[in-house]
Parts: sequence; structure tokens; C-alpha cells
Amino acid sequence: MGKITTSIITIGDELLIGQTIDTNSAWMAQALNALGIWVHRRVAIGDVREDILTTLAKEAEVSDIVLITGGLGPTADDITKPTLCEYFQTKLVQHEETLQRVLHLFESRGLPILERNLEQAMVPESCTVIINERGTAPGMWFEKDGKIYVSMPGVPHEMKGIMENYVLPQLATRLKTPAVIHHTLITSGLGESFVAERLVDFEAKLPPHIRLAYLPSYSLLKLRLTAFGADKVATAAELSIYFHEMKDLLPDIAVTDQDISIGEVLGKLLKEEGKTIGTAESCTGGQISTWITAIPGSSSYYKGSAIVYANEMKMKLLGVKAETLRAHGAVSEATVLEMLAGALDLLETDYAIAVSGIMGPDGGTPEKPVGTVWIAVGSREKMTTIKHHLRYDRDRNIQMTAVYAMNELRKLILA
Amino acid sequence: MGKITTSIITIGDELLIGQTIDTNSAWMAQALNALGIWVHRRVAIGDVREDILTTLAKEAEVSDIVLITGGLGPTADDITKPTLCEYFQTKLVQHEETLQRVLHLFESRGLPILERNLEQAMVPESCTVIINERGTAPGMWFEKDGKIYVSMPGVPHEMKGIMENYVLPQLATRLKTPAVIHHTLITSGLGESFVAERLVDFEAKLPPHIRLAYLPSYSLLKLRLTAFGADKVATAAELSIYFHEMKDLLPDIAVTDQDISIGEVLGKLLKEEGKTIGTAESCTGGQISTWITAIPGSSSYYKGSAIVYANEMKMKLLGVKAETLRAHGAVSEATVLEMLAGALDLLETDYAIAVSGIMGPDGGTPEKPVGTVWIAVGSREKMTTIKHHLRYDRDRNIQMTAVYAMNELRKLILA
Repeated sequence: MGKITTSIITIGDELLIGQTIDTNSAWMAQALNALGIWVHRRVAIGDVREDILTTLAKEAEVSDIVLITGGLGPTADDITKPTLCEYFQTKLVQHEETLQRVLHLFESRGLPILERNLEQAMVPESCTVIINERGTAPGMWFEKDGKIYVSMPGVPHEMKGIMENYVLPQLATRLKTPAVIHHTLITSGLGESFVAERLVDFEAKLPPHIRLAYLPSYSLLKLRLTAFGADKVATAAELSIYFHEMKDLLPDIAVTDQDISIGEVLGKLLKEEGKTIGTAESCTGGQISTWITAIPGSSSYYKGSAIVYANEMKMKLLGVKAETLRAHGAVSEATVLEMLAGALDLLETDYAIAVSGIMGPDGGTPEKPVGTVWIAVGSREKMTTIKHHLRYDRDRNIQMTAVYAMNELRKLILA
Repeated sequence: MGKITTSIITIGDELLIGQTIDTNSAWMAQALNALGIWVHRRVAIGDVREDILTTLAKEAEVSDIVLITGGLGPTADDITKPTLCEYFQTKLVQHEETLQRVLHLFESRGLPILERNLEQAMVPESCTVIINERGTAPGMWFEKDGKIYVSMPGVPHEMKGIMENYVLPQLATRLKTPAVIHHTLITSGLGESFVAERLVDFEAKLPPHIRLAYLPSYSLLKLRLTAFGADKVATAAELSIYFHEMKDLLPDIAVTDQDISIGEVLGKLLKEEGKTIGTAESCTGGQISTWITAIPGSSSYYKGSAIVYANEMKMKLLGVKAETLRAHGAVSEATVLEMLAGALDLLETDYAIAVSGIMGPDGGTPEKPVGTVWIAVGSREKMTTIKHHLRYDRDRNIQMTAVYAMNELRKLILA
């Protein structure tokens, strides 16, 4: 059975000059994969008529479905819609329902309506209009020579609404899709090539329709098994056998067998144990608490944090001793241990995480170069510390510190 | 003068199934634009021999430079390098310097070396090898029929090292590039279409080599002017005149004329004023402090934060009264005002930001639906509050709240 293939085309100079990072394509690929539809090409082009025409034709040659985002907002370059008309040999007409939606939206907000907002209701005559419940530019569904094309706005939450409400259900109904099943094991503590070495025999015997991918993500390594097959249940069952065999080869380094963030892994564990957590952060500036609270429902186990960038705040909020800071410095085992004890007292939680480090680009010394970080995690009964030397840029150092610290607490809770 | 055009090809299934978001392309585009090189196409493909061969040929047809990332790590699918050999009609040979680097790297870390690590030293014979100072897979520079091709690993900090140390300087030396100058004005408080309406006459008289793009970013709107020309100084001078004319049309909504984050805008302002800041965050869970401390040198104006997710922490750390919480609830003007006053006392700063809201997906009530957020910003002398109703998902609601709150403090400081 042939795979159903998709090309994603993103239109807009903002993606080509690097001012905007394309998060839409990743979301779309995940949603399509869940239906067994394979994204095999993603192409980003500018607001240029010839490029749009050529790319539409080329992608339709190699794909069953062509999804297009961008180029449709009220200040867009007025190129995408006329070019779609040219490609599909049709003309722009007014879409009454969209017009009423736009008028209503502006009236209900008490805003004057502009000519360019009304132009959002002009659509190519041959398309099926998809109502955009989160904005003014509608989606447009075309068919030509057996291929499906959908044009959507580039604003992520508008695109997601159109995909979820219309495009995905339509594709699921109309196409006979193969099953594509992914199962991801997240590991920690062993480098990519060493993990691969332990999986040499396992990988060698994988059948051709099951693939293993290594995806490093900060200090973690994701091992993703993907299986293709005609039947979803049979494919999932077969994948499950291989997945558990792989997991059994890596008992010492497995973190979770779901593709979730370390914040979610830790949250699930705390929920299971009925325990609470807080953080005392210096160098991470709130990144750990941000990731913990990114999880809906985290208020059941997370109570709060003391972000203590200044030394005076380490003393005032967490009771770190002036003598400790003087003798060992803010980036030291002694300081993070006092921060941890102080956080447990202040926040009245079962567990806490404390971190202090030098994230760069400045602030390093010969004894404590940029990238030096001390982490303490634990409870009143059991504390552990670890020191890392990170070698990346400021953003990455902060994010790796946060991942290391959360994983360290996870290990302590499970130990 | 013709533009020098580049295609970026990313190889790897992880970008096609949506498990990894492509941040490399944006960074590469920015770096190339600064040299006057235009990225006009970005293509993502899987680890598939035929797709790699076809895409290399197609992109070389329409671009002067083809940059390739991914497919080179020690656990990569062993497809990229043999396929590059096939395309460039050459064979793999051992590269002595890379071999020594890999051996040295493993020895210095006391790690055993594996066959797959040694394979990193095998390179196509016809390429110029680019040493990768941050990893084991080297970069490879090819030339064919007047086109330049560079293959690099997909790990962001390794790719960046190779680009900065070799590729960008080489391209700058060898190509006669046109000048491309961007200048971005960030605005706040007026929707995209209303800003466009105010700029109708301005846009109409822009010459063809200067373009205006509207780039919404959370609650802010970026207006980016781009100019192309033969001479860098003359182009920059011409752009500057238009930029200031545009800025003068939007005095009430201009935030900054640099393309920087709201955290950096606020940081610069605090530094200029010699003032300090702290935050009291409930619903944002540390996002505001994370963005403030993302800026190097923020320790000169940022002292710390109280992240008070639990009501008991609002009372204990910030002195919010039980009576206030009972009468008005945690998401109320009265609560955020007490949080603000408490933060100023606790953190001993000149300014503070306090936020409390319901970010979703759960926790809403008929009077306070999901998306309701109260913000208070100010100093001991002057405080202001604002209420927002956000309509997005949890992540976006958190990030928009953080942007709104920081911008509100910016306005108060400047008022």
C-alpha cells in the first residue's frame, strides 16, 4: 500500500529572513502523522508570484496533498490569493458568510471596518471556503487533477483551528490512510553513540517497516521507533513488542516512554506520589518554574518559587548565610544546599530544586568558568548535589541546567 | 545587479514528523542576510537517497548557494555522505585531521571510541573539509558547475560554529554581494490593519527596492523595512530616511526601533534610569523573570521574583490579605495590587510587575472565564492596573500576559 504524501508550503518573507521561526510545520506534521499521512517535503518560499506558481506545480507532482500557510492576512502582499486564482484558473468572488463574520467581528469590538478587512471576504470561486473561527482570513480547499490543496493563514492559532475543525476530519474521511505509529523512549545519562552501540543487535533485526531515530534534546536523548502498516492495531501491537525489547536494553537510562517534556514527567511523578514542589533559582531565572507550570493542572503539586538573582535575595528569602557566600561564593555546593533548605522552609513543600551558576557570556573566572553550575535537589530527609560544566550559549546553558535539575530530582524521588 | 540566492536544505525525518522545530534555518537566514545573501527557498526532506539527489539538483538550478544541514551525526542513517558522493561523483576517503580530532576528543574525556565515531572522519574526496570545533562531524564544502554547496551537521551549535568560523567569511570574500538592510520598528496597542491604514500613503511611495513587512508577534507588531542596493552605506542612508518617516507616523504606538525582545527593551530602559526590578508572578509561573534574565547583564537591574502559584504563598511571601482573596479572589485587581506592594517590599526594588490570571485549559468560571488576567505594574509612588481577556491556548496566554505586563511597565516608566 502506498503512503499518502503531503508537502507543506509556507509563503512569506518573514520565514526566509529568519525573523520568524516556523512552528506551524511541526504541529501540522504531528497532526497529519496521527492520521497516517506522511509529510515528506516542506518548502518555504517568499511572496513572489512565479515562486508560488512553480512550487505549487512541483509539489503537486510528488505529493497527494499540498498544504499552504501564510500570505493571507489583512496586510499580506496581495499576491497569494490572485496567484491561487491563476493556478486554479478561477477568479475572486465575494463570500457572503465570511463578509458577515468580518462585519460582525468589527462591530462587536466597536472598531471601524477598513477596506482591507473587507477584502478578506474575497475568495477564489472554485474553492470550498473553510470558516476561520479565530480570525478574518478564511481557509480555502481546492482539488485539481486528483490532488488536494488547502490554503490557510499563517497565524498559528488560526491555522490550528482550521486544521482541527475541518481539514483533518475531511482528510480522515476521504483518504484510506496507512497506519503510522510512533513510540518514543526518552533517556538520560549516556551519549548518543554509546546508546547506539548498546542497540546494535536490536537495530540490525528491525524489519524494514520499523525505523529507529536518535533525537538529542538538551541533555536528554529521544529514541523514536516508527512503524508503518496497513492495519493500525496490528502495527501498534508489533511496534509495542520491539519498543519493550528496546526499553529492556536500557533500564538504567530510561526516563519515560512517552514523548513528553521533563516538566510533565516530573509532574506525573509528583502527582502519583502526592508530593509538592517549589524551586529556588538563581542562574535559571525562573526557567524551571516556567516549565513546571507549563503543564495544565500543575497547581496540584507546585506551590511557588523564590527567584534569587541577587545575593541579598538569597540571604533574605532563603536564609543563605553571608559567611557561606563569602567563603564559597554564590556558585558553590554550600550555597545551593542552603538555598535548597531555605526553599523547603519558605515554600513548605516536600521537594525543592535549587540552582546557581554562571550562564555567560560574561561573569566567568579561572576557577569558575562560564558554564559552571551547581544543582541541589531533594527533601528535608534526603538531598543530593551535582556540578556541571556547560559549554554552550546563554540560552542553551539555562535550558540544559533546567533539564538536568528536574531530571536529578526525578532520579532522587525514584531512588 | 542580480541578487545572490541561497536554498537551505534540511535533511532528517525528525523535522518532517514534527518532533523537532527547525531553528537552524532562521539563524542561517539572518546571518546570510547580513552579508547581502538572500535565502529564497528552504526545503526539508527525509533521509531518502532519491529525495536528496533530486532536491540537490533542483535547488542548484535556481540558487547560487545550496546549504545543507543534518544527516551527519554518529547515529545518522548513513545516507547523506554516500549520497553526496554519488551526486558529486566522488568517493569516501579518510580525513586525517578529523580522525585525530575524534580520537583526541574521546581520549581526553576518558571514553572508549567506537567504530561509528571513527566513521565521522570519512569524507567525500572532492570536498574541502571544514573542521567542526564543537563536535565530531565535519562540514564539507563542494563546488560544481559554478554553484557552491556546503553540508553541515544539524546540531545547532555545531552548525553555527562552522558557519561563523568558515562559511560566512568565505562567502563574504568570494562573492560580490548586494547590500540588504533591515530596520524594524516594534509597535504595541494598535491592530495590524489599523497600522496599515495609517501607513497607506507612506507605503504607496516606497520605491521598488524598499519593502515593508508586517510581522505580528504576541501582543506586539513588528514593522520591518528592507532595502536592497549596490552600496551598503548609500542603501542604509536611504532606508534610514524612510524608517524615520514611518516612525514619525506612529509616535503613540512605537515601542523600540531595534529588533529586540520586550525583555531587552525593558532592560535597556531600567539600565538607563538606574532602576531595579522584581516580579510577583502567579499565572505566568516565572515566564516574566525568565525573559528578563535571558538578557546578559540583567543582574545589574533584576534582583529576584516571588513565584506565588498557591494562595498561601501569595499571603506568606507577599502579604496578600486572606480577606482580599476571600472577597475578590486570586484573579482580581485588589489581589494584584497587594502582590505588587508586597513584591516591592520583599524584593526591595524600584519597580515591580504582578500578574494573576486563569491560563487554561481548565479553571475558568462564568464571571472569570479562561483567559482572564489582571496585571499591576509600578513603583511605591505610582501603580497602574489593567485587565485582559485572552483567547488562546495555555502557552500563548502565558506568553502574551508576560509581554503585556512588561510593556505596561515600560509605558509607566516613560509616562
